[in-house]
Amino acid sequence: MRLFFEPGSVVLIGVTRRMGTGSYNNVQMMLRYGYSGRVFVVHPKVKEIAGVEAFPDVEALPQVPDLAVISLGRDRVLPAFTKCLRKGIKRFVVISQGFADADEEGKRLQVELARLAEDASARVVGPNTMGVVNPFNGFSTAFVDILKDPCPPPLSMIVQSGVFQVGYECFTEGMGKAIDIGNGCDVDFVDVMEYLEQDPQTKVIVLHMEGVKRGRKFLQVASRIARSKPIVVLKTGRSVAGARAALSHTGSLVGEDAVLDAAFARGGVLRVRNMLEMKAACRALLNFTPPVGPRLGVITATGACGIITADACEDYGLELAPFPETVRASLENPRIPWHRLHNPLDIWPLGMVTGSFVEVFTKGVAGLMSDPKVDAILGIAPVLPSPLHADLDMVGAVRELGSTRGIPKPLALWLYGGDQARQCALLAGVPNVACFSSIDEALLGLSALWRCETLRRSLEKTPDFPASPSVRLAPRFTTVESGVVAGNEAWRLLRDYGIPAAPGGVAGSLAHALEISKKTGYPVVLKIVSPQWVHKSDLGGIRLNVFSPVQLETAFAELLALFQRATPDGQLEGILVQKQMQGTELILGIKRDPQFGPVLLAGMGGIYTEVLKDVARSLLPLPAKEEALSLLRGLRGYPILEGIRGGVAADLSGLAQAMLSLSQLALEHPEINELDLNPVIVSPEGCWCVDCRIVLS
Amino acid sequence: MRLFFEPGSVVLIGVTRRMGTGSYNNVQMMLRYGYSGRVFVVHPKVKEIAGVEAFPDVEALPQVPDLAVISLGRDRVLPAFTKCLRKGIKRFVVISQGFADADEEGKRLQVELARLAEDASARVVGPNTMGVVNPFNGFSTAFVDILKDPCPPPLSMIVQSGVFQVGYECFTEGMGKAIDIGNGCDVDFVDVMEYLEQDPQTKVIVLHMEGVKRGRKFLQVASRIARSKPIVVLKTGRSVAGARAALSHTGSLVGEDAVLDAAFARGGVLRVRNMLEMKAACRALLNFTPPVGPRLGVITATGACGIITADACEDYGLELAPFPETVRASLENPRIPWHRLHNPLDIWPLGMVTGSFVEVFTKGVAGLMSDPKVDAILGIAPVLPSPLHADLDMVGAVRELGSTRGIPKPLALWLYGGDQARQCALLAGVPNVACFSSIDEALLGLSALWRCETLRRSLEKTPDFPASPSVRLAPRFTTVESGVVAGNEAWRLLRDYGIPAAPGGVAGSLAHALEISKKTGYPVVLKIVSPQWVHKSDLGGIRLNVFSPVQLETAFAELLALFQRATPDGQLEGILVQKQMQGTELILGIKRDPQFGPVLLAGMGGIYTEVLKDVARSLLPLPAKEEALSLLRGLRGYPILEGIRGGVAADLSGLAQAMLSLSQLALEHPEINELDLNPVIVSPEGCWCVDCRIVLS
Repeated sequence: MRLFFEPGSVVLIGVTRRMGTGSYNNVQMMLRYGYSGRVFVVHPKVKEIAGVEAFPDVEALPQVPDLAVISLGRDRVLPAFTKCLRKGIKRFVVISQGFADADEEGKRLQVELARLAEDASARVVGPNTMGVVNPFNGFSTAFVDILKDPCPPPLSMIVQSGVFQVGYECFTEGMGKAIDIGNGCDVDFVDVMEYLEQDPQTKVIVLHMEGVKRGRKFLQVASRIARSKPIVVLKTGRSVAGARAALSHTGSLVGEDAVLDAAFARGGVLRVRNMLEMKAACRALLNFTPPVGPRLGVITATGACGIITADACEDYGLELAPFPETVRASLENPRIPWHRLHNPLDIWPLGMVTGSFVEVFTKGVAGLMSDPKVDAILGIAPVLPSPLHADLDMVGAVRELGSTRGIPKPLALWLYGGDQARQCALLAGVPNVACFSSIDEALLGLSALWRCETLRRSLEKTPDFPASPSVRLAPRFTTVESGVVAGNEAWRLLRDYGIPAAPGGVAGSLAHALEISKKTGYPVVLKIVSPQWVHKSDLGGIRLNVFSPVQLETAFAELLALFQRATPDGQLEGILVQKQMQGTELILGIKRDPQFGPVLLAGMGGIYTEVLKDVARSLLPLPAKEEALSLLRGLRGYPILEGIRGGVAADLSGLAQAMLSLSQLALEHPEINELDLNPVIVSPEGCWCVDCRIVLS
Repeated sequence: MRLFFEPGSVVLIGVTRRMGTGSYNNVQMMLRYGYSGRVFVVHPKVKEIAGVEAFPDVEALPQVPDLAVISLGRDRVLPAFTKCLRKGIKRFVVISQGFADADEEGKRLQVELARLAEDASARVVGPNTMGVVNPFNGFSTAFVDILKDPCPPPLSMIVQSGVFQVGYECFTEGMGKAIDIGNGCDVDFVDVMEYLEQDPQTKVIVLHMEGVKRGRKFLQVASRIARSKPIVVLKTGRSVAGARAALSHTGSLVGEDAVLDAAFARGGVLRVRNMLEMKAACRALLNFTPPVGPRLGVITATGACGIITADACEDYGLELAPFPETVRASLENPRIPWHRLHNPLDIWPLGMVTGSFVEVFTKGVAGLMSDPKVDAILGIAPVLPSPLHADLDMVGAVRELGSTRGIPKPLALWLYGGDQARQCALLAGVPNVACFSSIDEALLGLSALWRCETLRRSLEKTPDFPASPSVRLAPRFTTVESGVVAGNEAWRLLRDYGIPAAPGGVAGSLAHALEISKKTGYPVVLKIVSPQWVHKSDLGGIRLNVFSPVQLETAFAELLALFQRATPDGQLEGILVQKQMQGTELILGIKRDPQFGPVLLAGMGGIYTEVLKDVARSLLPLPAKEEALSLLRGLRGYPILEGIRGGVAADLSGLAQAMLSLSQLALEHPEINELDLNPVIVSPEGCWCVDCRIVLS
């Protein structure tokens, strides 16, 4: 990857002869951005473009350049590419649009491009890309005249659109290395992340992702890197409309969004929902050290904004720290006996009475800073351009604190009153201090910082995500080759993995059914078992509330008659007789994601699943029981499992064990595409699977 | 109120002698802000402050000023106030802190201040306020040197903190008239709103509210004004921590936040959650005409941002309009056969191929603008400071459109690339165009605009909210004077209002119970009815699933025995025998809010209420059945009532009728403080109240 960011020589193919306004001339832009390596141009007609010698053909180049940048019409890309390969070029940026981002023909061309590259051990960024921007050495393949940050931050971007390079100030504020992988026909997130992992100019990695390939590998690499370098992702195409738009943009694979949430969580990747969160997160991660916890101390020159901050804390997942008593001692002022000190700390009355806002602010910040129960601080203060308010020099106070005692915890500032730009600039470079443009942005930033830290801590406790989990594959469990399995075969598989089923069995006769019921005890449930009756509840193939042998006899006969009438040619495996269990209905399941492999699903059952979609997901393997429990805790209905109104808790441990077993089953049986345990009944006495449906791939 | 904003003469009491930095000298600030009326100062020691003649006492003033501004320590406020009253002054701004915002003594002083004012027919703004800022005539009572907007917008603010006047550019961007009512001991939101209703310099009203008094009057006035002038409210203290902080700030009454949501909805007031929404809403309301619907057309120079916008549409309650075929015809370009046109419309490939981004952008915007299925437009375009990109003059294109064809629908712009400030300034004054600092801000703004319009439309269909609904009060329904009523009395009241109860009755004997059950049919439920058994379910005083006379006999005896054992001295009204109804459990209820009066509550029952808090609220009276139905539609569990999985819908009409009856009951029985119908069972066959509990005030 290094040659993409720091090539010694570059050839540009498909450059316009025009220069100046509206030309989008790659060569001109590259030179303006400050590239100091050797540049060649291939052009059939002219001898020179922008002062750079042009050659009629790649073959004619006097050396083999490190990198070729191709921006021809899509039909001319492959021939040019082949010529470059023949010349021995190994690195390519293919700017051209019209590949998988467009139509079937474009997809075909892209596949061919990738194949040619692989055969020649060459690497390709794109197509459909602006390529690479490296402000550290002044290298850029962009056809847009990008503003060069004279002091680029250690924040590197891997994106799928040039807009993040052109408009970086709106997305990440500052920009370090930035690569647009475009359609990602070859070089992908994993490749670049592995390069940035080792790159000393990178401390924070920001991804803009429309789709992901090599999902499990991505998570393996992310879960390794995110222990030392935070990774932030803006995954777009979250919404139905967004996903539709994404398919037409870079032709990315758009997965089920909830699975992506589970995936990023497992990979330790901080997901941001939008531009606002992205910018706030970047500012916080670039400027702040990781906080110990989510407890915020607030010092404000206006009580109203203290309340606004308290509201926002709840919105953004932060807490207000208890008010430090040491601060009370240093600030309590006998001249305003009625002034109550608490967190948020309103310093206005104190400043007015003592005559020094700076002193009160300094004491307050220092006091909050030294309290072990405060993890981060938000300071709210006016900065007015009027000379009459030069006394409100809270920015000076922060600079002073920074240079004398140091600022050991994140100090976010929201300044208002008209003089923000100038005053914030004075704080640039003060460690652990950052200015935000609103209370919300400040709290979004601190919240992202804390979420990032919790992700990092959870990575420390778990092994790297295994790209290909090392399990012994079990023999395919069934004679059925594909389709749906729901009968004895399915129950046997669950039993093999120790997943508890409701007591009972499949009866071939009434006598057998009576015998089973006698063992399990009444009431029982009867269900038709047949490959034709997979959706047995929709077909009426279930009888609940069978309380006695007499009722069983009737119900058994009714089901047999129903089966004959509805599916005269069907194969009847028997009638499943199950003890009718009491408890809370859950759903457990497995789904195989094309990118991330098997995903475990756990949710509240019945109408909870259907109407409220109260479901949590985890990628597999589940590292341990604790992760299963933590998944359950994420359900809105979790208090029901814990026992509401002083009720007794359900058998959460048994449930977690069943989830672990299911995880094992999913890994050892890759032929299973979907598996539904619905419902699973859980009560204080245990948990039991009541129905099971398996879909083979 | 006019004299507060446009006084002809002012006296300032409690002004420091100091001037310049850190003095917070009211007189100096007032003169700097440009006040041209007569100013007096009362000061015991000096002859002049800031060039203004000082008098030793109010009595000595040569005239009765229109307004007195008092900023003395709290203990000296009342004596000075009394002297002013004696002089004949009728308007006051009391700046001083330490009243209801502080402690009990402060509360007492504030009550006394309000009483004195009322007795003298004087009006007071404050205490604990910055007072009034009126940039139209250069009048300000603020002790801070506020930046004066040379061209103030028709946006007026009523706030409870000076920070909105000092830092307005962060909250509302521009500021017209602004009054800080502080603790609001006298002048409140209603007073100022009624003034702004008639004020030609006010088109949008923005409230910052910590608490509200005269709740029903507020809604009456709001529901009248909001038909012609949008009202935006930032109600703070939403969170538990925020409410706690609010109590210590201005001593406001903080109500239950969900009731406030219901109240604002009924008053047609647009609630914003935070600063981000507030600023976006203000910008949209100031610049845009109301849209016909929520359908957004998007034109973008970057496909990635089209996807981001699609995601954000879902987040912020907007829709993507279908792609207008007329635009397709005018833009389809044979030179890029693979380029698909849809909404969001990505113009980058078109601009590159045609060589004119401006032309493509203009065609696209004009096309979207003329399509009747597009209600508003978001334009996304780069604005780069480089001379090489002067061709990207989309801002020029918008100006051109504005001056030639006009822009009939809201056009929000998000511009990126570094030259935003300069280019946005060029668009100032173009009607129906506004620039936003991110896609999120643009969509927050358009969403607020659309919500405001839906509020306005709903106000048009309903009468003004009645501050005191004209109902004939029913005689108090019970002999019980206060406390909880749950027995026969309660059931009789429901019957009087036609609220259906589960069939059954209170039985005094087993024979009577058998007779009732015979009429209702089995299964039945038995419940102990006794003032001592209000929480009968916790005490085990309920028997479900009574399927036969034999079972009834047993259950009846058991309940009697239980009653004797548990409450030997209790009064037994009888045993309630009810048919056991099948259906979905709901909860209906009434709660009397101290500010807004009776509030109707409707929610999903059982664990839905307890764990998921799936509850909707409406202020009373409910105007009509449609409002009751619309309330139910707001429940997350509503699909269950509609019938999921092809099920039959519950009797929603009957349920809505019961809600209207309950509304009537609540208005006619002000002695009822709370009323719980829990559960109400609803099925396709009807709805029945199964349990009822009434709390008298």
